[in-house]
Amino acid sequence: MVHLNNSLSDEEFAHKDDYKALVRVAILLNSESNLDHLLDLIISESNRLLEADRTSLYLVDYESNEVYTKIALGVDGFEIRVPLGKGLCGTVAVTGETINIREAQSDDRHAGDMSDYITHTLLTMPLRTHSGKIVGVIQAINKKTGVFDARDEEILAAFCGLAAVSIENATLRRDIERMFNSFVVTMAKTIDARSPQTSGHSERVAQYAKKVALQLGMMSDQVRLIELAGLLHDYGKIGVPEAILMKPGRLTEEEWVWMRSHVVQTREILSNIYFIGDLNRIPLIAGQHHERVSGKGYPLGLPGDKIEFEAKILAVADVFDALTYKRYYRNPMTADEALDHLTSLIDIEFDETCVNALKEVIARDGPPLNTDFDPDAIRQAHILGALKTA
Amino acid sequence: MVHLNNSLSDEEFAHKDDYKALVRVAILLNSESNLDHLLDLIISESNRLLEADRTSLYLVDYESNEVYTKIALGVDGFEIRVPLGKGLCGTVAVTGETINIREAQSDDRHAGDMSDYITHTLLTMPLRTHSGKIVGVIQAINKKTGVFDARDEEILAAFCGLAAVSIENATLRRDIERMFNSFVVTMAKTIDARSPQTSGHSERVAQYAKKVALQLGMMSDQVRLIELAGLLHDYGKIGVPEAILMKPGRLTEEEWVWMRSHVVQTREILSNIYFIGDLNRIPLIAGQHHERVSGKGYPLGLPGDKIEFEAKILAVADVFDALTYKRYYRNPMTADEALDHLTSLIDIEFDETCVNALKEVIARDGPPLNTDFDPDAIRQAHILGALKTA
Repeated sequence: MVHLNNSLSDEEFAHKDDYKALVRVAILLNSESNLDHLLDLIISESNRLLEADRTSLYLVDYESNEVYTKIALGVDGFEIRVPLGKGLCGTVAVTGETINIREAQSDDRHAGDMSDYITHTLLTMPLRTHSGKIVGVIQAINKKTGVFDARDEEILAAFCGLAAVSIENATLRRDIERMFNSFVVTMAKTIDARSPQTSGHSERVAQYAKKVALQLGMMSDQVRLIELAGLLHDYGKIGVPEAILMKPGRLTEEEWVWMRSHVVQTREILSNIYFIGDLNRIPLIAGQHHERVSGKGYPLGLPGDKIEFEAKILAVADVFDALTYKRYYRNPMTADEALDHLTSLIDIEFDETCVNALKEVIARDGPPLNTDFDPDAIRQAHILGALKTA
Repeated sequence: MVHLNNSLSDEEFAHKDDYKALVRVAILLNSESNLDHLLDLIISESNRLLEADRTSLYLVDYESNEVYTKIALGVDGFEIRVPLGKGLCGTVAVTGETINIREAQSDDRHAGDMSDYITHTLLTMPLRTHSGKIVGVIQAINKKTGVFDARDEEILAAFCGLAAVSIENATLRRDIERMFNSFVVTMAKTIDARSPQTSGHSERVAQYAKKVALQLGMMSDQVRLIELAGLLHDYGKIGVPEAILMKPGRLTEEEWVWMRSHVVQTREILSNIYFIGDLNRIPLIAGQHHERVSGKGYPLGLPGDKIEFEAKILAVADVFDALTYKRYYRNPMTADEALDHLTSLIDIEFDETCVNALKEVIARDGPPLNTDFDPDAIRQAHILGALKTA
């Protein structure tokens, strides 16, 4: 580790401007919530602060006991994995020491260059969080002027502390979002699986709706909103009796009343969820997926200009999936037949922009593959099977 | 805002050590994920850096267009709310300016002191995130030596940048966790509500299990794990036919086979969720809530020493709630009767530590209040009603 030694000249140590720059870097790193972007930023900022020719960032994988890197500035992206304790980075990840090599070509600790690139100077330091956990290793290579000196060690040590906590936070946030998303997907699947006819329906609707949103050039936050609304649009079916959901034939008018009630239930149930920011529009949007631009949809019969645009996307995605998927009482339509049907109802039931965007999506990605269901599946086997195969 | 002026003496500006301290503060702030603790930390650190007598932190509430504070170092905690644009802090929250007052008693901008405490010097600055959003205002009061000078302004400006992004991150993380939790609670309620008999069951089990865990002195992460496992322990009932769940009487042996299958389904369905860290034990724990210490439980008939301790807590909480809640075929037991029943089965079905902890919880918090159900409720009304009243 770095020890300050007052007998050395001031020039070798960090200055006020270095630390001032580090404070700005701290804000920059902590403002980046996307983990991949953050890792890129850490590499480019440390490379700049140390005036290195290139810098690598290794993360520690405590499950496989390896350090790994996907990115190295100046090298084409490929994944390198090294066991903990092996090589310079694998060693630093275990011991937590700083290794500063002034001529790698004559140093046994340097494992040799893997390409034509020749390494001379090397500064390797652990990324240690506030609680002491080593989450990764930074390696700066070939300082552009001279060797990595005491000032570089001091600055990199401070930088590593900032970078480590940023990585820890961004990782945790990504993991919490993954947990939430996997929960929503799993729940949607289990609710769909109460009827073989609708198995996988919500996931497919979410995917169609997401693709339509992307096709229409929507921003990532809005795309995520639409995808989640797609996954959740039939949540209310949990309140519809199985006898109706699983009926092997057409429904009576009374049964349709029950069936239609799922939209109201979707909206009311979802209203109990504490959605963040714009996601709080999900109950509204999901609750309008059976509204139609003619005003003859349900539950409210809203005129077209009162229907949320995202709900119009859901409506198209929902009906397309229903038409192209087998029902007890009819075979699936082809994608073309379904798109023709949607087109014939433009400005009557569906929004033109949404139908056209779906056409482009299907033209590009092809028609849905599996449109059959297993009518003999018992519900339990079906639910578990739906989870396993999807 | 602060403008550096080279004609002023060096003493008035921040030094290397100040920025070095700020880098350490950056790591400290970003390592604190609990929002309340973070706000405390921001106040104490800014108070220390500026050598102020006391410091207040106001957050901006853009829904009510107010700034508010719950905490002020040196003042007993009470909430102050001020409209945006009013007062020093409300003004700074809108204009983003720095206000440095050298004698508040003779300055019109100071609104006056609300207690015996006399304010002389005041430094007020916005908490602005990297993207430019003002999330709060810091106000340092009565510098211990002299007035707040250019060095103080420079340091506080850098500190505010760090604090703003920390607040933004901690708020978002808290909100994502809230969203996840509310989703789990809502889903558990809707699954329970498929049968009037089990309405609210999972939430009550989660609460009993949480209290038992706290009574046993468990750490907050483990308490959260147990609470979530309690909410999710009956998820597999989504795969049990309604005819069985809603049967108004005792089940046949064949129906019991179906009913018991819910534990296996709970485990398998939950295994599809990407649980973070130790929460990945939830499928295992939830899937063991019908195991019994005698080895005569299901689905695996595990001996007591192979059952997770958290599952033993769930078992006690689950049975206690079932006994004290009305069933189609019997009235609820009183809390005392149920606890006596559990006690009689210690080391046969239940773990002694868990039963005793539940006794202490019930002795302290009293018996459950509402133990009835509405057998005439139609499922839809019931599901929606359960969500509204719980």
